[in-house]
Amino acid sequence: MTPVISVFAASPDGGCGLARDMAVRWALLEAGVAHDLRPLSFAELKTADHKARQPFGQIPTLETDGLTLFESGAIVLHVAEQHGLLPREPALRGRAVAWMFAAVATVEPVIVEREVAVLLEGDRPWTPERLPLIEARLRQRLDDLASALGEAEWLVGDFGAADIMMVCALRRPAAARLLPDYPVLAAYVARAEARPAFVQAFADQLARWQAGAG
Amino acid sequence: MTPVISVFAASPDGGCGLARDMAVRWALLEAGVAHDLRPLSFAELKTADHKARQPFGQIPTLETDGLTLFESGAIVLHVAEQHGLLPREPALRGRAVAWMFAAVATVEPVIVEREVAVLLEGDRPWTPERLPLIEARLRQRLDDLASALGEAEWLVGDFGAADIMMVCALRRPAAARLLPDYPVLAAYVARAEARPAFVQAFADQLARWQAGAG
Repeated sequence: MTPVISVFAASPDGGCGLARDMAVRWALLEAGVAHDLRPLSFAELKTADHKARQPFGQIPTLETDGLTLFESGAIVLHVAEQHGLLPREPALRGRAVAWMFAAVATVEPVIVEREVAVLLEGDRPWTPERLPLIEARLRQRLDDLASALGEAEWLVGDFGAADIMMVCALRRPAAARLLPDYPVLAAYVARAEARPAFVQAFADQLARWQAGAG
Repeated sequence: MTPVISVFAASPDGGCGLARDMAVRWALLEAGVAHDLRPLSFAELKTADHKARQPFGQIPTLETDGLTLFESGAIVLHVAEQHGLLPREPALRGRAVAWMFAAVATVEPVIVEREVAVLLEGDRPWTPERLPLIEARLRQRLDDLASALGEAEWLVGDFGAADIMMVCALRRPAAARLLPDYPVLAAYVARAEARPAFVQAFADQLARWQAGAG
């Protein structure tokens, strides 16, 4: 059975590849696995049918081999375990899984905090004063991430699932706008975006958006 | 080698068991694994020595069998894989891992957002107006979580790693204060807190705090 990814029927990002299905598409293409899409409208995301797949009514989900997975981190971990996108050596594998959790639980929330401030509280009088506070918290994370990466090409040994999750977090606009101040991280994201599987995943979602499907 | 968990030398929570080492202690006790502690001061957390273990200078880490793991979700996943705290059936195992990621990436960030507002921006004039906005976002998550749990005792089959991560998120004060409005979730947390391994983990950290070690 061809794996099926649930995606936004009309992505709100204008073809920038910022929705969370991007990590899943990218991982599957790195693994050379063809996949189908299940486009869902915002109304369909909130139905009982979709919440049986994804309890919070979000994308992405992955249906494959009798499994119905949710959370991009969990899906990419599953794909990685099946298709060699994690180091084989246990100590390195453990670090890679730790970096996957760090991407979604330690780095991305501060990025999303800025997006929430702009998108959901942008018209509030306090937002201009809050943005520098949020940015300072985000810079702490980026400082530590840049130090940890150092001269390395990827987070743990060869390219893998940890890099997919971390790069997808760093590509979000609230982080991407700071990358010029972090040449190590800017180069890391650029290396990742040059990978054929990323290029293909990006082109796939852009083509859908340009075709008017979102 | 006895596993070693890094913890706060002086926990800021006054013995309430809210620091992120709690999930790791609890998981190891569920697994019947003895462990040692490495207490670290706030200054020690920010040293190069600790950042080699934990790139963001946080607790917990787990050193075991030549591995140095970080991120409570990754550590609990490792313990769960080694000691049967995940379902064996692949479809259920996949859901359980997804719930672990949901706990740290989808539920906990909204809880932490309220904590940040109170702790880091509590003296700002906008915070009283922002708290209801944050609470509304948190209630969306709790609504969905309560619906997903429904009449079930635990998130996926028997008690396991997904419940450890989710209950630790729900025990944080910003979520705990809303639980009276969610009887399903209040009962779920109470069931978890009654487990002998939780009781022991809680008592262990409280005893350290009462001894003045924090």
